[in-house]
Amino acid sequence: MTVDEAPSTTRNDKATPAAPSTGRLQPLGLREVSLRPGFWQQRQETNRVASLEHIEQWLERAGWLGNFDAAVEGRLPGARRGREFSDTEVYKLLEAMAWEYGRTGDTALDRRYRAVVRRVAAAQEPDGYLNTNFGRPGQAPRYSDLEWGHELYSFGHLIQAGVARARTAGPDELFRVAVRAADHVCAAFGPDGIASVCGHPEIEPALAELYRVTGERRYLDQARLFVERRGHRVLADIEFGRAYFQDDVPVREAEVLRGHAVRATYLAAGAVDVAVETGDTELLDAVTRQWRTTVARRTYLTGGMGSRHQDEAFGDDFMLPPDRAYSETCAAIGSVMLSWRLLLAHGDPAYADLIERTLFNVIATSPADDGRGFFYTNTLHQRTPGTEPAPDALLPRAASSLRAPWFAVSCCPTNLARTYASLAAYLATVDDDGLQIHQYAAATIRTTRYGCEITTGYPDEGRITVRITETPESPWTLSLRVPSWAAGATLDGRPVSPGWARVHRRFHPGDVVVLDLPVQPRITAPDPRIDAIRGCVAVERGPIVLCAESVDLPPGVDLNALRVLPHAEERDGVVVVAGRTVQPQASGWPYGPASESVVSGPLDVPLRPYHRWARRGPSTMRVWLPLAGGRTDP
Amino acid sequence: MTVDEAPSTTRNDKATPAAPSTGRLQPLGLREVSLRPGFWQQRQETNRVASLEHIEQWLERAGWLGNFDAAVEGRLPGARRGREFSDTEVYKLLEAMAWEYGRTGDTALDRRYRAVVRRVAAAQEPDGYLNTNFGRPGQAPRYSDLEWGHELYSFGHLIQAGVARARTAGPDELFRVAVRAADHVCAAFGPDGIASVCGHPEIEPALAELYRVTGERRYLDQARLFVERRGHRVLADIEFGRAYFQDDVPVREAEVLRGHAVRATYLAAGAVDVAVETGDTELLDAVTRQWRTTVARRTYLTGGMGSRHQDEAFGDDFMLPPDRAYSETCAAIGSVMLSWRLLLAHGDPAYADLIERTLFNVIATSPADDGRGFFYTNTLHQRTPGTEPAPDALLPRAASSLRAPWFAVSCCPTNLARTYASLAAYLATVDDDGLQIHQYAAATIRTTRYGCEITTGYPDEGRITVRITETPESPWTLSLRVPSWAAGATLDGRPVSPGWARVHRRFHPGDVVVLDLPVQPRITAPDPRIDAIRGCVAVERGPIVLCAESVDLPPGVDLNALRVLPHAEERDGVVVVAGRTVQPQASGWPYGPASESVVSGPLDVPLRPYHRWARRGPSTMRVWLPLAGGRTDP
Repeated sequence: MTVDEAPSTTRNDKATPAAPSTGRLQPLGLREVSLRPGFWQQRQETNRVASLEHIEQWLERAGWLGNFDAAVEGRLPGARRGREFSDTEVYKLLEAMAWEYGRTGDTALDRRYRAVVRRVAAAQEPDGYLNTNFGRPGQAPRYSDLEWGHELYSFGHLIQAGVARARTAGPDELFRVAVRAADHVCAAFGPDGIASVCGHPEIEPALAELYRVTGERRYLDQARLFVERRGHRVLADIEFGRAYFQDDVPVREAEVLRGHAVRATYLAAGAVDVAVETGDTELLDAVTRQWRTTVARRTYLTGGMGSRHQDEAFGDDFMLPPDRAYSETCAAIGSVMLSWRLLLAHGDPAYADLIERTLFNVIATSPADDGRGFFYTNTLHQRTPGTEPAPDALLPRAASSLRAPWFAVSCCPTNLARTYASLAAYLATVDDDGLQIHQYAAATIRTTRYGCEITTGYPDEGRITVRITETPESPWTLSLRVPSWAAGATLDGRPVSPGWARVHRRFHPGDVVVLDLPVQPRITAPDPRIDAIRGCVAVERGPIVLCAESVDLPPGVDLNALRVLPHAEERDGVVVVAGRTVQPQASGWPYGPASESVVSGPLDVPLRPYHRWARRGPSTMRVWLPLAGGRTDP
Repeated sequence: MTVDEAPSTTRNDKATPAAPSTGRLQPLGLREVSLRPGFWQQRQETNRVASLEHIEQWLERAGWLGNFDAAVEGRLPGARRGREFSDTEVYKLLEAMAWEYGRTGDTALDRRYRAVVRRVAAAQEPDGYLNTNFGRPGQAPRYSDLEWGHELYSFGHLIQAGVARARTAGPDELFRVAVRAADHVCAAFGPDGIASVCGHPEIEPALAELYRVTGERRYLDQARLFVERRGHRVLADIEFGRAYFQDDVPVREAEVLRGHAVRATYLAAGAVDVAVETGDTELLDAVTRQWRTTVARRTYLTGGMGSRHQDEAFGDDFMLPPDRAYSETCAAIGSVMLSWRLLLAHGDPAYADLIERTLFNVIATSPADDGRGFFYTNTLHQRTPGTEPAPDALLPRAASSLRAPWFAVSCCPTNLARTYASLAAYLATVDDDGLQIHQYAAATIRTTRYGCEITTGYPDEGRITVRITETPESPWTLSLRVPSWAAGATLDGRPVSPGWARVHRRFHPGDVVVLDLPVQPRITAPDPRIDAIRGCVAVERGPIVLCAESVDLPPGVDLNALRVLPHAEERDGVVVVAGRTVQPQASGWPYGPASESVVSGPLDVPLRPYHRWARRGPSTMRVWLPLAGGRTDP
């Protein structure tokens, strides 16, 4: 048994997914913030006890893990299974396991992690290259298809997994595999190497994190090189255009995120990493501007990004159809990665606002309650009830009208797994003045300077109680984010405005600070430039987007015939909106002089959290509800 | 010089694209109906003098014609160019040339036709198989990829071309090639052959027409076999699901057209052919029902079909986004093929209504004025100005925000060419009682029994004058279609309702019948179930859908900020709608309490025919105009 095979004994309290060396705020480690029972802890626990195993089983069953064994045994390409990027699902599982072990110290999980690592490591080639889909006789040569081959994307996820392990438990076999891979990438794509980039960004943030772990400048330089090269048409044109992989405009010149939404957010996250580490304010400003414009014009109410199925891409400004929302789960994760980095860099709570919205309305929506099914896309309007996927089916990615166990392109389950495992990292930060709490959940925070217990029934309830458990002698600032939707919030009974609610004073253990956020239902109207939801409203409650679902309607009532009044109220814990149904005159042609519809009703329609939809079997669903006789805009 | 190489001397007056042996109405031949100068003749002439040459040049330049030479010379697969279905563009060009020669007797065109035929014929294999993409060493085996290989689709277009030639000029070399191919298909896919179908329907109507030309029942039997097999999951499941190629539900059980819109309409057309020739009323009723539901729920105002880019498919009922309308030009052609067959079968003018709408608003929209550029997709809302395609660019199919000279998938230009060349066939029919005029254009009709001159400035003007030039002695019925939109129409001054306006009497040469259709602008509202255009109206004038285009707005006015009043009037020949613009409050997040917008105006907005859009350079465009302060529905 080598040292690597012994159970890990050291676990680093400060391990965290993104660790910039500078910035307005400093992240906390996964063992500095612990979730306690509540909304997020329940989901993190389901991820730990069910999703990780489910994913590992599917990776075996689908043969994607076996591809590494086949590589070692010389059975490729004949024995290869899965898409060209299937290796990355193994790496994302390893990353999830690394975070989870770092958090819990679960030795059984650690053994499973090591067993997978051994199979991966065995397939690495002497020069550091590692990919089960390229380079062998009968396979396409290495780097022969940068547009679609995903080789650097794959290295990116390998490196992220190695970084997660190095941070949580110290450098191990996987970390060394990752370093060898990174060294190979630097040699192959360095200043004297292939002057191009990968069709799918991911290597950029990965190399930046490897620099942060190792202090080796060459990884940062290579990340910067990849960021700078992109946008100069170094990749071939494709059917979707070069905007698909952000090779249309250089990162520092672009005005908005565009193209494939996962690619766009990963690249932007990597660009922030590079900008922060190199002090490149122009680059940081560029990504900051792109984030602002994207949030103002290209983001769904749920925080979801990407309105096109065809190329999994952002649409034009204000092109946000609810019924063909793509809103890929992975794009939401990319959005959180990006917003988190900008939050650390700037300290602006607007980034945490979007993270909250995205967590509660996309990342909480995707997994099934049992952790063994997932939404790949997250539509805001389901017109016809979906069909239950077969439990053993490998679904096409976008066909999941109900949560499905696995996909031919199965990026989302593993991406969720690593996100849930590291979720606590996004709750709070510190700076020289004190502690900032960004996301509200029952949790314990214990840093080298501060300690507190957060008690809350959020998001069902709006009260957040922070009890100080450890504190320096000197005064410091406790900063609590007041979400932008929370007009009327109070801190210890005094009104506070959205933004930061700050308490600066000398604290004592046992001190309590109470933030009250108003979580009564509220009516939300869309910007009139969003054509697809003109004349509609949505109902939100705290950070939660609500929806109407057909299973809550009386028999025979068609959800798509529903019209509502712009008023919602809560009755016995259920938000209800008053509505009626309209039945258009039957016609063979759906256009003509405006005709009267037969109006039925009135009708009380219960609304449920969007993240709960499609958990009671096939149904139709709407987030945006047409107004009864409502005016569209002035 | 063989007989085949001599110029053709016989041309058949009655040649027509779809020639059912039975049905309520009988089609006329391409030399029985001649367009005279006017809207359609101008476009047909542009097709003849420019598009056919343009297409032929591109087929050479792109190497798709050269693939046949490469096949003969043993240079395949190395020398092969283009997609797997590129052979079909050559066949559709040949079909277009055959119709055009049949119509005009242009001997220079006939020589070009023969030259292409020789190259195609030389590549046919001894057993009748002909495809430059399959079956040779280094290529995939024949019929190894029925889902995507398009081999039978390709035979379908070959047969259609051969049929066109046989009908217009008599059996020739191409026709014999087509017959050998059809015999091969019957052998390979007959009752004892491969029990499957092609991923792209087209062989079905082609074999039915070959039966109609030859009287050989085996072609009809094979067409019927293909129609009956489909829908029983004989093809593999694919990412888009089996509905993509209509293999989800048997044709006679389906309720609506679904999946890929070109595939769906071609299959339905073939099913009508089979139903009519075999007296299968159940099958005919099934397709008729599908047509009705599709028109009532899945068709754009323009007549365009297909609302999804991803799979070029019909969406769910009432899922008709204007800004992501796919509305492929070929789907419009498929729709005309289908409606025409149903019109011949049933005699119901509703089918001619949809043909008119589709001709004026999709098929007239696609080609550039010079006949050397084309829209592949036909959006109803362009949010950002397109970019001029490079004149030598092979564009991805859906990227044509302006008309483009050629596409990597270039089905639409050749499909338009064959449609324009045979356009006169769709104007009129006969039955035992007399003559029916379905489409209005300046034209001369001369059948074995009836003759008339149609004089009209349609669609600019609504008056259609029919002067009888030849007539039997006995009374007969002249039937003129009154479009469904034409409330207030008069025939010889007497009010007539939409449907058929019939004149039954003894006619004399020189008799004149005058139909007046009201072509003042009218406001059209959508069915309230079409979410994507709630709160909007369109303006139509006669058969023409109008649109607002940014190039007609004052500088600085954003088309997407425009709101209109539901009233349009004509001034100096231009339809004008009153509007104003709204400027929403700037915000970092596009959802919240309804906020006031800054309203500017009033503003008169000129509207132009939709088919004229994007002919004055890059622009934004809207068919559906949001109402100013308009109520959405009751």
